[in-house]
Amino acid sequence: MGSVRAEDGYALWMRYVPLAPALAADYRTRLGEVVAPDTTATQRAAREELQRGLSGLTGYAPHMTTVAAGGPALVLGTPQSSRLVASVRGDVESLGDEGYLLRQTRIDGNDVLLVAARHDIGVLYGVFHLLRLLQTGAPLAGLDVQESPRIKLRVLDHWDNLDGYVERGYAGNSLWDWQTLPEWRNPRYTDYARANASLGINGTVLNNVNANALSLTPAYLAKAAALADIFRPFGIRVYLSARFSAPIELGGLKTADPLDPNVQRWWRDKANEIYARIPDFGGLLVKANSEGQPGPQDYGRSHADGANLLGDALAPHGGVVMWRAFVYAHEVPEDRSKQAYNEFVGLDGAFRPNVIVQVKNGPLDFQPREPFHPLFGAMPRTPLMMEFQITKEYLGFATHLVYLGQLYEEVLKADTQAKGLGSTVARVIDGSLEGHVLTGMAGVANIGSDRTWSGSHFDQANWYAFGRLAWNPHLSARDIATDWAGMTFSPDPGVVQPIVAMMMASREAAVDYMTPLGLHHVMARGHHYGPGPWVDGGPRADWTSVYYHRADHDGIGFDRTAQGSNAVSQYAPAVARIYADLERVPEPLLLWFHHVPWDHRLRSGRTLWDELVGRYALGVRKVEAMQAAWAGLQGRVDAPRHDQVAAFLRIQHSEAQWWRDASVAYFQSISGRPLPAGETEPPHPLAYYQALQFPSAPGDGR
Amino acid sequence: MGSVRAEDGYALWMRYVPLAPALAADYRTRLGEVVAPDTTATQRAAREELQRGLSGLTGYAPHMTTVAAGGPALVLGTPQSSRLVASVRGDVESLGDEGYLLRQTRIDGNDVLLVAARHDIGVLYGVFHLLRLLQTGAPLAGLDVQESPRIKLRVLDHWDNLDGYVERGYAGNSLWDWQTLPEWRNPRYTDYARANASLGINGTVLNNVNANALSLTPAYLAKAAALADIFRPFGIRVYLSARFSAPIELGGLKTADPLDPNVQRWWRDKANEIYARIPDFGGLLVKANSEGQPGPQDYGRSHADGANLLGDALAPHGGVVMWRAFVYAHEVPEDRSKQAYNEFVGLDGAFRPNVIVQVKNGPLDFQPREPFHPLFGAMPRTPLMMEFQITKEYLGFATHLVYLGQLYEEVLKADTQAKGLGSTVARVIDGSLEGHVLTGMAGVANIGSDRTWSGSHFDQANWYAFGRLAWNPHLSARDIATDWAGMTFSPDPGVVQPIVAMMMASREAAVDYMTPLGLHHVMARGHHYGPGPWVDGGPRADWTSVYYHRADHDGIGFDRTAQGSNAVSQYAPAVARIYADLERVPEPLLLWFHHVPWDHRLRSGRTLWDELVGRYALGVRKVEAMQAAWAGLQGRVDAPRHDQVAAFLRIQHSEAQWWRDASVAYFQSISGRPLPAGETEPPHPLAYYQALQFPSAPGDGR
Repeated sequence: MGSVRAEDGYALWMRYVPLAPALAADYRTRLGEVVAPDTTATQRAAREELQRGLSGLTGYAPHMTTVAAGGPALVLGTPQSSRLVASVRGDVESLGDEGYLLRQTRIDGNDVLLVAARHDIGVLYGVFHLLRLLQTGAPLAGLDVQESPRIKLRVLDHWDNLDGYVERGYAGNSLWDWQTLPEWRNPRYTDYARANASLGINGTVLNNVNANALSLTPAYLAKAAALADIFRPFGIRVYLSARFSAPIELGGLKTADPLDPNVQRWWRDKANEIYARIPDFGGLLVKANSEGQPGPQDYGRSHADGANLLGDALAPHGGVVMWRAFVYAHEVPEDRSKQAYNEFVGLDGAFRPNVIVQVKNGPLDFQPREPFHPLFGAMPRTPLMMEFQITKEYLGFATHLVYLGQLYEEVLKADTQAKGLGSTVARVIDGSLEGHVLTGMAGVANIGSDRTWSGSHFDQANWYAFGRLAWNPHLSARDIATDWAGMTFSPDPGVVQPIVAMMMASREAAVDYMTPLGLHHVMARGHHYGPGPWVDGGPRADWTSVYYHRADHDGIGFDRTAQGSNAVSQYAPAVARIYADLERVPEPLLLWFHHVPWDHRLRSGRTLWDELVGRYALGVRKVEAMQAAWAGLQGRVDAPRHDQVAAFLRIQHSEAQWWRDASVAYFQSISGRPLPAGETEPPHPLAYYQALQFPSAPGDGR
Repeated sequence: MGSVRAEDGYALWMRYVPLAPALAADYRTRLGEVVAPDTTATQRAAREELQRGLSGLTGYAPHMTTVAAGGPALVLGTPQSSRLVASVRGDVESLGDEGYLLRQTRIDGNDVLLVAARHDIGVLYGVFHLLRLLQTGAPLAGLDVQESPRIKLRVLDHWDNLDGYVERGYAGNSLWDWQTLPEWRNPRYTDYARANASLGINGTVLNNVNANALSLTPAYLAKAAALADIFRPFGIRVYLSARFSAPIELGGLKTADPLDPNVQRWWRDKANEIYARIPDFGGLLVKANSEGQPGPQDYGRSHADGANLLGDALAPHGGVVMWRAFVYAHEVPEDRSKQAYNEFVGLDGAFRPNVIVQVKNGPLDFQPREPFHPLFGAMPRTPLMMEFQITKEYLGFATHLVYLGQLYEEVLKADTQAKGLGSTVARVIDGSLEGHVLTGMAGVANIGSDRTWSGSHFDQANWYAFGRLAWNPHLSARDIATDWAGMTFSPDPGVVQPIVAMMMASREAAVDYMTPLGLHHVMARGHHYGPGPWVDGGPRADWTSVYYHRADHDGIGFDRTAQGSNAVSQYAPAVARIYADLERVPEPLLLWFHHVPWDHRLRSGRTLWDELVGRYALGVRKVEAMQAAWAGLQGRVDAPRHDQVAAFLRIQHSEAQWWRDASVAYFQSISGRPLPAGETEPPHPLAYYQALQFPSAPGDGR
């Protein structure tokens, strides 16, 4: 396959490096002539991407034209922009606004590969699909693909502050250089848009949900408008996080009460101002009455009142409100994992048609493993939008190799049974279960100024997997990993297979060394870096670890059955029965739902205590297996990327061992039990682990 | 000259792009064979740089060998490492530890270009000198250059916090990724070392002078040691900023009193610990009893007591203490610009031999223009180290094009007259005036994670100029700019000349639109972004603008003559007489030293008021001239860099206008005078400018 090129990761999965000569020759024959319109910015983006891709992959620049000259050709267009595409108008009409088809056919006696769509953006998406096929060495003969997104809003949420700091960011500063915008349009903004368009991501929320009202001032709207101008050709709309109290802070009003006419007028005026600058502005994302953010409850109003206030302001312009359901209050003595459901389920049907409620994948907060959120399936009259976290706040930051595609798939395939078997979360999200047209999936971005974009090479896969699943939540995480590895490292199966195996095992490894058997929220306080099962005290019980694991001399786990918090009751009865039953609950969720005696026998025949201790060590061994697999790829992956991944795996290994040692030391201090045979004592006493301090760990909220 | 290559600035002045064919052919003939040792890391660095440079510049990889085969060759080495170099042993011995010679000569009947030195590091420096000659198209025939640094410690000070934030940084986050060190050794660290070695910079202080004691803990020392390992082959020693109270914070002592034996033991032990990890550790930089930092005065001790405490701890290992003279206290009613002198001048001769006192270029704080610091020349028995600021805290951040070489040169050429005429600051700094061996120059780095390193393309020139002047403080800023422009953009004189002209005019432009005629410290509070001549109140008077400009209905300026604060008395009498004399003081320093009536006639014949207002507008026009010059280079500079510089110039222009408008509006409100004919009224009332808020401006201390 020739020499391995040194790379720094900036090119993401769009590297376009030379293919094997025979393959390149075949593609060159079929695609050497490109017939494509060039009058709109999106059309030019598609042409430029093809020029870049075909030149890189085949070694020859394609001949770009707007009129077919005869002979084999790649033909791009819509029925409006291309005479040749008009010949398949019927098929194209069925594709929807963003869909496309790729078809090898004969037109006027010539072999033609059509990339056709109703609109330019569909053509661009089709071009990226085609380039993916080429990068992974797919055969083109007989190609006939039709694709349309299953989800309407496919959005990245950037938790980026206006000073460039990224909350829970592990990839450097914010991509957005607010200081030099709108004058300086960094070419990187265009590359960001290309990467997203390659996946079908069609929206970006520029600023943190813990929002600063300044982002709605004229100066910052001008900056956001500059980004919107850059993103528009790539089909990406700009959204902003709105601070609910902005009418007070910016408008000088005395209240932000959603029923106050002055407040309503302020938001209508603000929406008019925004749309005057950004005609295709996507809408507003709101975190309200959660973790100290202002919201409608400050005025005795409901989340629906708050969301509808903004919905009414945006409706004349076609904008949407993404209203987060991530709410909890420590004044409420209820199990925190139940509170979002309790606050929202009664509001079903109370939201305006342009409001979508954004729900985290699980009922707590992006843990390595949670059951699916009980709101999915429980609000049939309200569109619910998935919120996944791509940045790895609880999964080892950027240095741990954890492929989240597996996590996303697990959640999406979970069966709410809301309408009987097969009522998967994916079908809630894509609207098919309950007949919603407004659908969405958001991912909290892991993107920053780091040269790799994501803080590590493998974290690029999580951005990639999110984007592919937002397009189609029924895809397989393994298939996505296979595509990504082929494009990002090499189409050589001898490279792809071990990488995909590493990726597919990686999330379970992290669960094992961090939170086995359904444990959750046992990380260090604040920055969430490293283990902290001993975390107790502080401002609120539901920010501690002991609140969640409830370990004592007799056992461990959070009883969420009817004998406990009864969180199981928030699920459909068939699901609740399984979760509530100690014998039927899936063991990966055991301690999420049950307080279990240390002596309890698991399906392995081992006691809970022995299994728990063993799981930690198993996680460490799984990291060692990844290290061995990666070592085997030396020389088949370019040295700079191989070196960085190897270094990060060393960090992951030592931190996995730290998680194991600290967790075992702590839980042993509670259980008072001996370690199972073959398990080594932690090298330090518990007090050592408890004393470790990391005040400069990245990404902490501030 | 062929096509212009798209570039992103990462390569700095080490781009090594193809030369004109005839020149490349000449160089290839002379340098196609490289005879160089390859046993040490520094030798390998020299070889690799040459391979990179010659391949890029001439299009052909040189033939690298360790033994001369006959024929023309480039020969590298020391008398120990090279038989051919041993033939010029006598000349080499005179070069000092870091010097080198470049000589075109004949040895054994062959044309040989020698790069010879006493030590490997000199050879590496010589290689970079040679590459500079090649990049700027210099003829090699008859080449005979001998170079030795005039200054011993040539150091960058990074004001980088451990969480990655850079105080007064405008180029992204810290380069140092403390979270992934020591495991991950980003190749960028090596490129940083290459860039510094290319200038002869031989030290780097990794962390902020507003220091966190954690940087002295074992975990962070391991990280610093990893950086030291990377930098060592490039002749760069690592230093750390020390928090004076570390014995309390880390050692659990009750005091940090420098005369306390336990404190002394703690620092000795800490020094031993550091040197066990970093055998060539450079030493410690300290900011003490200034702006809230702890220091010896907390215990009734002097700066000398504090510095000597650390000096004694480091002395057995050969380390030095760089003790900052940037001290002032708001409890002291004295003119802030006098305080450093007052605190330090009486300590002359009281410091240990391995202590050097680090003095900012001017008595205040890195203003666009200040007189030289009166300590220079006033402490003959104490080595004084220059501290320049490379990052542009007060000079428009990264978006304003301001070449600081001109500022540095002005300071270095200033005549203290401490030992009669010709007692320049440069001669104080290089030790020649007072016979010091320990000499130094520090630059507060403008380097961060931004792809350009410095936040803009032209700010790279300030890093470059600092490094060149640290090597030889007698160089000309214009010559340095010429070298830099030739290497960074093109050796084409049609490119170099207009760029150098822009650079050489740029600092005076900034002075004009920000602080004309000796005004100082009139920027906005805290972040220092934009004008703030109205700044008043707050925690301390000497952090306000009105403290410094003292404008009233009758006049403006800070009277520092004997009738005022008498700061002039801190200078040598001959200098003081000039500064104190309203008729003789240089007009660029007029309002620094004098409170002057608005009606006072300047040398132009105009009144002070008319001249002041005119200067602001002149500054704006100078920016417009830079914009015009840059526009003329379109097509001769690659588009990405041209676009960014053009965008930044637009920002600079609008901000220069803002400075002019706000300053004129404010001072007019004080003077009550009409604008001179031809001057336009500011477009907004004063209150508008006063109300502008920029809470997210970068680089603010926190």
